[in-house]
Amino acid sequence: MMPPQQDLPCAMIGAGRMGQAHAGVLRTLSGVRVTWVMDVSEENARRVAGQLGAQYSTSLDEVLAQPDVSAVIISTPAPTHADVIERAAKAGKAIFTEKPLAQNLADGVRAVQAVEAAGVPAQVAFQRRYDPAYVQAKQMIDAGELGRLEGFRAVGRDPEPPPMEYLVTAGGLLVDMGGHDLDLARFLVGEVEEVRAIGGALVNPELAQYGEHDTAVALLKFENGALGTLEVGLRTSYGYDIRTEVLGEKGRLHIERDRRPDLTVYDARGANHDRPRHFTERFPEAYAAEITAFAQGVLSGLPLTPTPRDALLSLRLGLAAQHALNTGETVRVADFGREELAKLPPAPAEIPAGGGR
Amino acid sequence: MMPPQQDLPCAMIGAGRMGQAHAGVLRTLSGVRVTWVMDVSEENARRVAGQLGAQYSTSLDEVLAQPDVSAVIISTPAPTHADVIERAAKAGKAIFTEKPLAQNLADGVRAVQAVEAAGVPAQVAFQRRYDPAYVQAKQMIDAGELGRLEGFRAVGRDPEPPPMEYLVTAGGLLVDMGGHDLDLARFLVGEVEEVRAIGGALVNPELAQYGEHDTAVALLKFENGALGTLEVGLRTSYGYDIRTEVLGEKGRLHIERDRRPDLTVYDARGANHDRPRHFTERFPEAYAAEITAFAQGVLSGLPLTPTPRDALLSLRLGLAAQHALNTGETVRVADFGREELAKLPPAPAEIPAGGGR
Amino acid sequence: MMPPQQDLPCAMIGAGRMGQAHAGVLRTLSGVRVTWVMDVSEENARRVAGQLGAQYSTSLDEVLAQPDVSAVIISTPAPTHADVIERAAKAGKAIFTEKPLAQNLADGVRAVQAVEAAGVPAQVAFQRRYDPAYVQAKQMIDAGELGRLEGFRAVGRDPEPPPMEYLVTAGGLLVDMGGHDLDLARFLVGEVEEVRAIGGALVNPELAQYGEHDTAVALLKFENGALGTLEVGLRTSYGYDIRTEVLGEKGRLHIERDRRPDLTVYDARGANHDRPRHFTERFPEAYAAEITAFAQGVLSGLPLTPTPRDALLSLRLGLAAQHALNTGETVRVADFGREELAKLPPAPAEIPAGGGR
Amino acid sequence: MMPPQQDLPCAMIGAGRMGQAHAGVLRTLSGVRVTWVMDVSEENARRVAGQLGAQYSTSLDEVLAQPDVSAVIISTPAPTHADVIERAAKAGKAIFTEKPLAQNLADGVRAVQAVEAAGVPAQVAFQRRYDPAYVQAKQMIDAGELGRLEGFRAVGRDPEPPPMEYLVTAGGLLVDMGGHDLDLARFLVGEVEEVRAIGGALVNPELAQYGEHDTAVALLKFENGALGTLEVGLRTSYGYDIRTEVLGEKGRLHIERDRRPDLTVYDARGANHDRPRHFTERFPEAYAAEITAFAQGVLSGLPLTPTPRDALLSLRLGLAAQHALNTGETVRVADFGREELAKLPPAPAEIPAGGGR
Repeated sequence: MMPPQQDLPCAMIGAGRMGQAHAGVLRTLSGVRVTWVMDVSEENARRVAGQLGAQYSTSLDEVLAQPDVSAVIISTPAPTHADVIERAAKAGKAIFTEKPLAQNLADGVRAVQAVEAAGVPAQVAFQRRYDPAYVQAKQMIDAGELGRLEGFRAVGRDPEPPPMEYLVTAGGLLVDMGGHDLDLARFLVGEVEEVRAIGGALVNPELAQYGEHDTAVALLKFENGALGTLEVGLRTSYGYDIRTEVLGEKGRLHIERDRRPDLTVYDARGANHDRPRHFTERFPEAYAAEITAFAQGVLSGLPLTPTPRDALLSLRLGLAAQHALNTGETVRVADFGREELAKLPPAPAEIPAGGGR
Repeated sequence: MMPPQQDLPCAMIGAGRMGQAHAGVLRTLSGVRVTWVMDVSEENARRVAGQLGAQYSTSLDEVLAQPDVSAVIISTPAPTHADVIERAAKAGKAIFTEKPLAQNLADGVRAVQAVEAAGVPAQVAFQRRYDPAYVQAKQMIDAGELGRLEGFRAVGRDPEPPPMEYLVTAGGLLVDMGGHDLDLARFLVGEVEEVRAIGGALVNPELAQYGEHDTAVALLKFENGALGTLEVGLRTSYGYDIRTEVLGEKGRLHIERDRRPDLTVYDARGANHDRPRHFTERFPEAYAAEITAFAQGVLSGLPLTPTPRDALLSLRLGLAAQHALNTGETVRVADFGREELAKLPPAPAEIPAGGGR
Repeated sequence: MMPPQQDLPCAMIGAGRMGQAHAGVLRTLSGVRVTWVMDVSEENARRVAGQLGAQYSTSLDEVLAQPDVSAVIISTPAPTHADVIERAAKAGKAIFTEKPLAQNLADGVRAVQAVEAAGVPAQVAFQRRYDPAYVQAKQMIDAGELGRLEGFRAVGRDPEPPPMEYLVTAGGLLVDMGGHDLDLARFLVGEVEEVRAIGGALVNPELAQYGEHDTAVALLKFENGALGTLEVGLRTSYGYDIRTEVLGEKGRLHIERDRRPDLTVYDARGANHDRPRHFTERFPEAYAAEITAFAQGVLSGLPLTPTPRDALLSLRLGLAAQHALNTGETVRVADFGREELAKLPPAPAEIPAGGGR
Repeated sequence: MMPPQQDLPCAMIGAGRMGQAHAGVLRTLSGVRVTWVMDVSEENARRVAGQLGAQYSTSLDEVLAQPDVSAVIISTPAPTHADVIERAAKAGKAIFTEKPLAQNLADGVRAVQAVEAAGVPAQVAFQRRYDPAYVQAKQMIDAGELGRLEGFRAVGRDPEPPPMEYLVTAGGLLVDMGGHDLDLARFLVGEVEEVRAIGGALVNPELAQYGEHDTAVALLKFENGALGTLEVGLRTSYGYDIRTEVLGEKGRLHIERDRRPDLTVYDARGANHDRPRHFTERFPEAYAAEITAFAQGVLSGLPLTPTPRDALLSLRLGLAAQHALNTGETVRVADFGREELAKLPPAPAEIPAGGGR
């Protein structure tokens, strides 16, 4: 008889909105075993721990000190990501962190430095890179099936805005919500040279007082010459609207989950089908796949993707786009945060920017 | 701290084609823990056990005697189902069995009797009843959203025929492949009154020598007056083709998974998307959901569905349809196997025929 | 300067439901000029004539005697088709007649004899043969792109039943409504060997008193071995439901107009699009194309399709299917009406049965 | 008997690429009768006249002098539109002109002045305003079904670039190809306040020498606060790609013709359907409807839409967008060409800007 399949013992750090979504995935998944749940709210920690049969704590130090914690799954609010990453890296834990890596480049650089100095495996949760449709798109592009890339187009719209208190600390619409789409732009097409953006507070005019937007559109000029558009919003009346297109010389890829479930209803209104209403309905396979890939990579010693360094470039793009949105300027991405990024040692040769699994 | 979530310790009985598919699901699923794998082929048993971190055996008796086996998951060849069910029931194990319940009514009746006499929880694996689209269709129908039901239409086509040796022991096209669609007919529309069928060996003419078919079409007249058609085949060039429609006074439901993954490719050939190529691609959520429902039902003592008695009526419909196909006769379903079924005690009141979850 | 493009001067015979639909097409079409409209109802004749700038009459003889009538477009009630065809043929007019050719084989044979004896050009209005999707399907099948044909599947459902007085004289559901689908079966797959059918009066139970059906399903066994199903109905809640599938060794063709107009509305109910609600919304190109083909064929002397002889075989299939529906018998098509058809001279060599344009 | 339906006797001015497309429509259409065809190429004029049974000439003056010419249909190269409009207006002819109205504002103003001074009926051929899907979208928006408008998104891509000699005189990508989409922006959402654009010569790098683009993306800020994106291109590998979306508070409209014909082919590559390959395949109903509306409007004295004045505002938007593309500047549309437009008298009250039929 062979030994039972090994599970990676993990601590969940953060048990709020995103943490609970991760917990829902972890509950149904083998390969990862959540042994501890930490949250500054004892109630959140206790509840999620109860669902997962794990212990809980309100102290990060206590959790990082546990011997049955090999890895951390970080779902704390974005402003704390860099700190938690740094402390987990120093404690020698493998790290799976929700995006964004950080909310500013200084913190992002610090997080990358900590991870690379400690030599711990680390992965940033851009789950779309693990969605079957995006995986296949990436493979087709890499195999040259589109020929030269000429265009990119993304829509990212949440069904309804998160609470105001979340929004004003989220780092800006194009860093937070748009961060996924900008990461995909790099993943699928390549680095962005220039970005322009305009936006407004169309859904919740109150946001304007805080200098925040709930709707934005942007133009992307890629280093390889491709041209792109991006639309981001925080409210639809019709569910979660995530679409991505890549146009090349030989064809166009269109990614969209437009049916949930596989049921069309024909009645007096015509033909009707429902769409995903929430990111957990759009990306269930991806959330499972990214955590499984993380656990398998850590257990087997294989490289993880996307790395914090890769995610740092996506953060830089998000911040550059947000700066364009805030100022109305055309922002050259390579010049944005140049000094901060210069503090990093050269990238290890084997990790190409934007490289997918 | 709460205790870790409980897993149901199971033995997999049968590690061939279908068993390996189940193993793939079980490997990624929490809530069920496979402790033993049994197959008459030691090689199959060892391999699947290795994947699942379980012990293995070629002896059913040995496995049924284990204290860390609370339930069995039966994926043996169809002709053995009734026997294994009977032995597992006598051993007091909870039972999850691949369909069909049996290949003839005498065996099916015996299996139901054994399960009901032993009072063990039991569920037959008609996984489509757990697919999100079928679940929603059933709810809409039960809620009266279609009004009076008037029509049913099903297509069930495998991408390519199973091996000849499987086919000639599978019990007939309308019992084996068609069994799923006929179960859905009962699940969604109700009991069938009459069935007509014609068929042929169009894909593999050699099958005709064995009196078998690889293609068949049937007409269904339901007790509630609805009229239906059924198409079954064992070869397409374009993947797994499973479609179900229910027509009512107020509308029509159409169930089809037509995209895998959520990617459309536009190129010189037009717009192209791939379809499911295999049942594991069409029904991954359903395979996970039915086993999860089984485990949760067993652990919590809640009723399971579909029961062996319910599955026996689907078997009777399959056998009646197969008889119609073999003879060219119009078969009245209620008269088919009346004597065999009369041997059963009256159905427990709380389990309506065709009742879904 | 070239002479103005020639128009074919036609008389419309019949200005009721179908005649008015044809008039709507003729009004927007060049190539055909309606000079006379005849209907037994002076009011119908006057109204349609007014729309088309034509003269009108209640006398068929008067119209057939006009020098500026080279052709007739027959849209009278089905029971009169054969008579009108016979008289128009004797008058030497080119004939475009609404289907069915006749309602019984004796009349159909008489109509074919009259046309062939007079040597006038004649075309029966199976407009689907001129729909771009069916034209392309036929071409692909003839070019062997599906390989050996194995299956056929058709749905034909009207949004709502015609008036009762129409239904009881229409010749039966499978002759009238089903006639289009059975003609397509011959057009796309080939001649039918055997047919089984069941039906009911589900929409309007009163129809049962007249021995009529509003819902039917049928099984078709083709001479080439392919197997088919057919669903016909007279009421949906969701518009006009016309679908056709042909399954072959190498692929499957699926024909359906599922969107009208090219607009999808996303709102709180999900994604919604409207469908054709009427045959004029489903087949506008086909109605225009078949009349244009008729006019061009007559003016240029090229052969027309489908011919009355071809349509007679579709009528025979419809009557055979209706007989199967009425009696519950399995009907061998080649034996049905054998004596009547034997009265015809051999088919002219150049017109293959089921030959499309 | 009523008099025959009246036809509007027209002269086609211009028988090149677009003129021949119009001729194809006119040939099948009643309500309009082409009596003369004029082109500077006698060969073009003769060929199209022959197809239409019309007389031909290479002299505009000769054609404008004919008594059997009540209206002109202008399909000459864009640089000549304003001149031809002016001369036709002075000759008292009703005018249907291909877009753009002109290639610069001075010419456009002159054309509007000429038409309004002469008091002749005039319509500019933005045919999409007559496509059934756009008509319905406009009606839904006007009826408030989307609530407040928040977003606009358009894609306009030709399958392959027109000849180089056409491109370098076409007035710029966003005036020519983009002109349709920018007119739709005004038609569906309202006037644009600001525009930004970037572009390149990705398909044909040679174009860069002429300062021309074949690919561009733009951001639109509307006066009502809505935000939009636009993508324009001159080459796809997959056909004609025209998509328009309007996002509102209560829903989203998506317009796309994605199937031609209504046939899906399932084979070893998955599910495949063809798309429109040319504008005549995307907009056949619209080309027929706009000319029919023109003829009916002229014959009945009803107002035409869009008027030259309305088209002038679309031209101004196109030129502003082109200026943004050429310079990289953010262009305020209301300031663009302010002096030229000031030369026009105030708009007649009854014609709202962007008003559809």
